[in-house]
Amino acid sequence: MARERIRVRRQPERGRYDRLAIDGVLDSGLVAHVAFVDRGQPFCVPMLHARVGDELYLHGSSASRAVRTLAAGTPACVTVTVLEGLVLARSAYEHSANYRSAMLLGTFRLIEDEADRLAAFEAFTDKLVPGRWSEVRGPNQRELKASAILALPIAEAAVKVRTGPPSDNDSPDAALHTWAGVLPVVTGFGTPEPAPRLKDSIPLAVSVRRLLERKL
Amino acid sequence: MARERIRVRRQPERGRYDRLAIDGVLDSGLVAHVAFVDRGQPFCVPMLHARVGDELYLHGSSASRAVRTLAAGTPACVTVTVLEGLVLARSAYEHSANYRSAMLLGTFRLIEDEADRLAAFEAFTDKLVPGRWSEVRGPNQRELKASAILALPIAEAAVKVRTGPPSDNDSPDAALHTWAGVLPVVTGFGTPEPAPRLKDSIPLAVSVRRLLERKL
Repeated sequence: MARERIRVRRQPERGRYDRLAIDGVLDSGLVAHVAFVDRGQPFCVPMLHARVGDELYLHGSSASRAVRTLAAGTPACVTVTVLEGLVLARSAYEHSANYRSAMLLGTFRLIEDEADRLAAFEAFTDKLVPGRWSEVRGPNQRELKASAILALPIAEAAVKVRTGPPSDNDSPDAALHTWAGVLPVVTGFGTPEPAPRLKDSIPLAVSVRRLLERKL
Repeated sequence: MARERIRVRRQPERGRYDRLAIDGVLDSGLVAHVAFVDRGQPFCVPMLHARVGDELYLHGSSASRAVRTLAAGTPACVTVTVLEGLVLARSAYEHSANYRSAMLLGTFRLIEDEADRLAAFEAFTDKLVPGRWSEVRGPNQRELKASAILALPIAEAAVKVRTGPPSDNDSPDAALHTWAGVLPVVTGFGTPEPAPRLKDSIPLAVSVRRLLERKL
C-alpha cells in the first residue's frame, strides 16, 4: 500500500499508514519540521502548520527562502513529531523514546484563491488555540497579500510509533536491581502572560481559559 | 561571521551564532530532526541526540537508511527546536510562536574508536535523564557493534529565536477589546510508569526522582 520510499523499513511493526493515525499526529503536534533542498544542501526548518481536510498547510512570508523554494515545487518532506515518553531500560543500549512521528513527502502548491487563503488563516489560528479565530481581527488585504500559504496533499504519508515499556523485560537484564520504566513527557501550558499594554479590563480569552481547563 | 547559507536572513535580529546560544538549544531539546537527501528526495527524521564537546552525536541501527546515508558523508541538516510559547495577538495575522531553534549544516563522520563510542553511549544516556548512566548496565561488545554513532561538528550553525509579546502592541489593534499575550508552553514529566515485571522492591531511580524534583 505505502510507496517504497515512505514505508517504515526498520521495525516495520511500528509503521502505520491510515489517516486516523496520520491526522492524529498532525493535529496534536504544534510544530512541523519542513525539509527541502537548495543547491544540493538539505535544510530543515521549523514551521507552524494546520491540517485542512486532505492537505497540510504551512504559511510564511512570501520573502522567505523556505517559502520561495517550496512554492517553486521542489520535493519536500514534512515531519511532525510528538514525544510521549522517555524509555528507561536496565541497559544503556535499550534506552529509547516513545513517540509518534508523521512524515509526508510531496510537493507544495501555492494557495491563491482568496476564500481558501482566508480559510487557511482560520485553520492556523484555531490550530494554536481552538476557538481563537472568533476572538480576533481577521486578516486584511495587506496581510493576506504578505502571506504565502502552501498546501501539501496528505497522500504519501506514514506514521512511526513507539509505545510501551523498555524492551529488556524478557532479557536477563530484567533480573538486575535497576529501576526501569517509562517517564511520560507531558506538554502543558504555564500561566498566560498578558501583553504589556493590555487593558486591565480585558479578561483572559475564553479560548485560552478552555485550553487551560483541558490541562493539555 | 556566519556563512551565507546558514545566516538568518528573514528577521536577522532573531539570529544568533554564539556557542552559548547554540549549545543551550542542543542541550535542552530532546529531539533532533535530521534532514538528508536520498535520490533527490529530502527526508526529515526525528532522532535522539547528545552534544559531546564541539560535536553533535546521533546514534541508530547500522541497518537504518538514515544512518547509512549520513555515514556515507551526504550533506545533512540537523534542527533542534524548543517551543516556548504561543503568541496570541489581537489579529490573526500576528499570531506566532516563541521558540529557539538551532540549525547545523555539515556532514557526519562515523565514530569508530571504542573509547569514543563508549563515551557517546554515556552522553546519550545522561542526555535523556542526567545521572542515568551510573545506574544502568553499560553496553557490551554485541551492543556496541550493532550501533552506529555519528558525529557532526558544531561549526556551521545558527540559532533563531523569537521571544516576547505579540507584535501588535504598537499598532491600532492594541485598542481592540481582545485579550492578547503569550501562553507559555511547558514540557514536563508525568508519573513514572514502572516496567511490567519490575520487582516491587526496586525503588524509583534516583536520576528520575531528581529530574522530577527539578520540575522540568
